[in-house]
Amino acid sequence: MMLVNGFEDSKVSAADRGLAYGDGVFRTLAFRGGVPRHWSLHYAKLATDCAAIDLPCPDESLLLDDIHRVCGAARECALKIVVTRGTGARGYRHPSQVEPTRIVSSGPLPDYPASYSREGVRARRCRIRLAEQPALAGVKHLNRLENVLARAEWDDPDIAEGLLCDAGGNVIGGTMTNVFIATRGVLATPRLDCCGVAGVTRSRVLDAARGEGIPIHVAHLPWDEVLRADEVILVNSLAGAWPVREIEERTWQVGPFARMLQTWIGRDDAPSA
Amino acid sequence: MMLVNGFEDSKVSAADRGLAYGDGVFRTLAFRGGVPRHWSLHYAKLATDCAAIDLPCPDESLLLDDIHRVCGAARECALKIVVTRGTGARGYRHPSQVEPTRIVSSGPLPDYPASYSREGVRARRCRIRLAEQPALAGVKHLNRLENVLARAEWDDPDIAEGLLCDAGGNVIGGTMTNVFIATRGVLATPRLDCCGVAGVTRSRVLDAARGEGIPIHVAHLPWDEVLRADEVILVNSLAGAWPVREIEERTWQVGPFARMLQTWIGRDDAPSA
Repeated sequence: MMLVNGFEDSKVSAADRGLAYGDGVFRTLAFRGGVPRHWSLHYAKLATDCAAIDLPCPDESLLLDDIHRVCGAARECALKIVVTRGTGARGYRHPSQVEPTRIVSSGPLPDYPASYSREGVRARRCRIRLAEQPALAGVKHLNRLENVLARAEWDDPDIAEGLLCDAGGNVIGGTMTNVFIATRGVLATPRLDCCGVAGVTRSRVLDAARGEGIPIHVAHLPWDEVLRADEVILVNSLAGAWPVREIEERTWQVGPFARMLQTWIGRDDAPSA
Repeated sequence: MMLVNGFEDSKVSAADRGLAYGDGVFRTLAFRGGVPRHWSLHYAKLATDCAAIDLPCPDESLLLDDIHRVCGAARECALKIVVTRGTGARGYRHPSQVEPTRIVSSGPLPDYPASYSREGVRARRCRIRLAEQPALAGVKHLNRLENVLARAEWDDPDIAEGLLCDAGGNVIGGTMTNVFIATRGVLATPRLDCCGVAGVTRSRVLDAARGEGIPIHVAHLPWDEVLRADEVILVNSLAGAWPVREIEERTWQVGPFARMLQTWIGRDDAPSA
């Protein structure tokens, strides 16, 4: 089911700036046990992302109403929230009066094989490099052609995710996941100040690790450092945490950090939240 | 008036990948004297841009039918053509069966002051830098948040355009125009192999200059080189050619290259087309 500005609808204006320019942001999250999971973090991230492109963020209460309407009696579903700068005169300039378009929709949770969490996934290195744009880094905006091009690089259903590097060869993330590596007891994740999306699950893992006193590096992670890591783990709000069992020729066993991240992510809230 | 896949409509599916990811391309062109101006070049560019993101390009005849329907009896109007990868399952992966969405719409030609062409425009340097993405450079795709952020940097109605540099400080183009400079009889325009949009008017000017034996440099153009140029000229399909009369403290008189570009652009076809 889908609501557009609170009305049951499946369409938006073809003049919407979300379509014309990708002028908007979005969230994907899980609805389980009758509630949107980690909602306060998702709403805070939505508000931060809106602010990054100077877009008014819809009121939390409006979104919560929409969410409960699109999920209805479902026990669990996947939620998507899109906020755009609405319609306006032609041209890149903001409309003088911005009336954001908000689209809230529900669908089935993705049916990833249970083995992804249990035994790990195969991943690959994508050829396309992420462009560096500090003004938009970390923001989950609607300009996602790089992700589309990256995902089009492979067709093998046995490969669950592709990893993307910046022009300098540092791993930034997967096409739809954030990346953690564990090396000699230290957890590390890429800096996302020049590109990439800083997801809510990533920040929950960082908070949990800090709460438990586990050393964390948020750093440049050259490709070789990822391949040499003791563990590589992919996270997002719908997938949870997937241990990586194979990239190119390198293989891994599922390790203790993957299990720890799965426990943290499975909690109702990160310890410090 | 607007046609969506040939039907009179003003809406598209809210699940369209053009909205979700900016997964598509577009064209803006002028309709004058009962025909879309320089259509063969615009269609060729649309096809090239579609190919760049592996998107099937709609047949030329379909688009021409749409164009004549949306323009109706109008003597002149502005045309916009958007092609997206249509709807599909959630996720970045291409749908197994792509049915592109094509949106053709007409509107009034922008009412730029006549002084812009005659006496020139004021321009400014934008703070945001364009990210370098060779895989998408030159393509007029729907991921245009950088242009939106750049255009939001100024509100002064007396400034007609903002110029954008790459991270290295080379001028790439305006928010909605391509840039030429003339220096001691040589015409130069930025290389667009890492970012920017390679517009049809730019390529018409390049063709015309070659046809008339005028030396052309397609090169890196550092900001200082632009400020030191004898002339700076902004071009696009709706504006034609605007001489720049002021950027920051530097001022210019309208020069012979501006007049020459205006003549070339005003022709029915570039000499070599």
